[in-house]
Amino acid sequence: MIRVTRRYRFAASHRLHSSELSGAANRDLYGKCNNPYGHGHDYVLDVTLEGPLDGATGRVCNPATFDSLVTESVLRDFDHKNLNEDVPEFAAAVPTSENLTSAIEARLRDSWDTAFPAGWPRLRAVRIQETKRNSFEKIR
Amino acid sequence: MIRVTRRYRFAASHRLHSSELSGAANRDLYGKCNNPYGHGHDYVLDVTLEGPLDGATGRVCNPATFDSLVTESVLRDFDHKNLNEDVPEFAAAVPTSENLTSAIEARLRDSWDTAFPAGWPRLRAVRIQETKRNSFEKIR
Amino acid sequence: MIRVTRRYRFAASHRLHSSELSGAANRDLYGKCNNPYGHGHDYVLDVTLEGPLDGATGRVCNPATFDSLVTESVLRDFDHKNLNEDVPEFAAAVPTSENLTSAIEARLRDSWDTAFPAGWPRLRAVRIQETKRNSFEKIR
Amino acid sequence: MIRVTRRYRFAASHRLHSSELSGAANRDLYGKCNNPYGHGHDYVLDVTLEGPLDGATGRVCNPATFDSLVTESVLRDFDHKNLNEDVPEFAAAVPTSENLTSAIEARLRDSWDTAFPAGWPRLRAVRIQETKRNSFEKIR
Amino acid sequence: MIRVTRRYRFAASHRLHSSELSGAANRDLYGKCNNPYGHGHDYVLDVTLEGPLDGATGRVCNPATFDSLVTESVLRDFDHKNLNEDVPEFAAAVPTSENLTSAIEARLRDSWDTAFPAGWPRLRAVRIQETKRNSFEKIR
Amino acid sequence: MIRVTRRYRFAASHRLHSSELSGAANRDLYGKCNNPYGHGHDYVLDVTLEGPLDGATGRVCNPATFDSLVTESVLRDFDHKNLNEDVPEFAAAVPTSENLTSAIEARLRDSWDTAFPAGWPRLRAVRIQETKRNSFEKIR
Repeated sequence: MIRVTRRYRFAASHRLHSSELSGAANRDLYGKCNNPYGHGHDYVLDVTLEGPLDGATGRVCNPATFDSLVTESVLRDFDHKNLNEDVPEFAAAVPTSENLTSAIEARLRDSWDTAFPAGWPRLRAVRIQETKRNSFEKIR
Repeated sequence: MIRVTRRYRFAASHRLHSSELSGAANRDLYGKCNNPYGHGHDYVLDVTLEGPLDGATGRVCNPATFDSLVTESVLRDFDHKNLNEDVPEFAAAVPTSENLTSAIEARLRDSWDTAFPAGWPRLRAVRIQETKRNSFEKIR
Repeated sequence: MIRVTRRYRFAASHRLHSSELSGAANRDLYGKCNNPYGHGHDYVLDVTLEGPLDGATGRVCNPATFDSLVTESVLRDFDHKNLNEDVPEFAAAVPTSENLTSAIEARLRDSWDTAFPAGWPRLRAVRIQETKRNSFEKIR
Repeated sequence: MIRVTRRYRFAASHRLHSSELSGAANRDLYGKCNNPYGHGHDYVLDVTLEGPLDGATGRVCNPATFDSLVTESVLRDFDHKNLNEDVPEFAAAVPTSENLTSAIEARLRDSWDTAFPAGWPRLRAVRIQETKRNSFEKIR
Repeated sequence: MIRVTRRYRFAASHRLHSSELSGAANRDLYGKCNNPYGHGHDYVLDVTLEGPLDGATGRVCNPATFDSLVTESVLRDFDHKNLNEDVPEFAAAVPTSENLTSAIEARLRDSWDTAFPAGWPRLRAVRIQETKRNSFEKIR
Repeated sequence: MIRVTRRYRFAASHRLHSSELSGAANRDLYGKCNNPYGHGHDYVLDVTLEGPLDGATGRVCNPATFDSLVTESVLRDFDHKNLNEDVPEFAAAVPTSENLTSAIEARLRDSWDTAFPAGWPRLRAVRIQETKRNSFEKIR
């Protein structure tokens, strides 16, 4: 069994603001991330699969298939977008990197389980780097 | 004479859209950067000074002074902001990285010339990295 | 459950020298790291927590709390310090990166267990990068 | 128990071509990696050991021993080589990064188990980064 | 005037061997880079233009034009290729990074001067990074 | 003419303290860099030569010669050392990165002018990166 990780990037903007909290509580909680007009990041997305080696091709997953699944399920909807305005998962939820990681992992898990019903290659981890200083990971 | 470069980062969002062009021309020119709700980046800002060494301190510029000038003239207004909405230079101009570099260089040049009227240390270059793939520099 | 990693840096000096060994044995074992006057590194410290998402805030841990716990328990005592002279854990133990990782993990574990007695967010891993070429990790 | 990772690099060339497939199938499967005269990469190799701390030295493994085992079992045969022509494992197998990871992990596992028959330090993971965009890992 | 740099990558293999020298002299001069079957690198290519800002678009050069000129004149012929076998400039010349930089700069200079006969944007510098440890630059 | 840059690293410790100033003035000027027992960094050293291409070898400078000159004139004396105690240039001068850059540039200039009295390859620039956030350059 080998683990394969491919790295993607997307540029997006967001504003951290919870509709369940007062303006003052939002400013206190999210600080400058609560700026009314938003701000943005270059997100790094690392997707990790695990699976057995295919003896004929020497691969765990065809890279073209890998890229196509990530592009269709995530990058097309998240790259060069405003997370609050453009992505349905954040109509209600606050686009923190934790919620972003959950949303992306759920999309990728669905894509993989649909594309590979036999179970291999299997999605193992999704990691989002928001900046050089923080990262967020969901492990399956 | 020694050149000293200090690196800063700021997260901001923007939308590339020229009011002088039609919607179709904007989409054609700026592609996905024209998305109505904007997107964002983690900008890297490298500021380069040049000056003689101070014999007593062994320095070209006190780092606290350096950081304070950059923070007050640039970071306070650009970090965690929407360039189109929050920064006066982009009320009319399109916030391309070229215009962003020009605006930041003009602010820093003013700050430095005011703080160091004798001419040293002197601002030599301002460089903006928008993503890992592109950078923009103004040399004085 | 989401894992959150935040990255910190500290600059410190050290000398590798075991009082249990002869001068020749120390030189043989630690090589140039045994230089009498020491040398230094820019250490990278990655701290990983795991926990459930708070539905209201969309976060595993408030970043301000995270930073404050690491600063108070580690950075204040280790940054811009001489590990052998300034840090009590290395009064007797040799400040190898392995021992450094153990000492920092013990401090952080105490801080987290005290700050979050209910168990979440929980400290999962502490990783020290001494140089670009080596890293050291303690997993809980 | 502490995990220690050391990073190595080697430059090598390869061609992806399976003798079990037709020319057209190879071009379809491997794309530009099937170019007849090959191409190359600067591979990054991360080797992770786990073990208890030696109380006298404060180390999990002597770094000189670590480097020497990796150099003798891997780097001497792979660095500045053509994987297809110079490395026996790829006389038949296609030098994909998955097969490369398997081959290197098998060599390192043998070296470590021979050098440390008591079981510690133990090889835990071998990770190959082919480019900035993909990596491959075998965990023991 | 603003300088714009865009970064590209290409994977290629090569062998350093001068037909003007004996086998022994080649081995002595080029060391392991003289390995008969070659080896490879992930080259980083930084291309720097300089020009005035277009007031309407806020740009020095349309990024799509920039990418297209580099792809057509360089990447299409160099990426996933064997420099000695696939690139005409190295039929006779040794594919050192110095010669590689010269060849790529000559191709790009021609492309730019043809595409922008009025002189702006102007090619200013071409930089090749062969590995993390060395880079090569031609300034115009 | 081609410019060639090679990158080196050295780990060293230092304390910023000027004997011309009072203890209070030193603490005020150098802050935590004035810690009595010192601290350390992993310095990155970039050395840039310029010269014509040698037609037979395709090189500006033999890399082995390049490395040997830098190792003998700089790395042997600075790597894994305490700058204040081990390096004669800092017996009196404060080991700021500006003074460090000057000292290293002076040593390299001497080495190059001695080794290549005809003038080519010529030392063009010496750059020291103290941390990820600052760098210092002397251009000739």
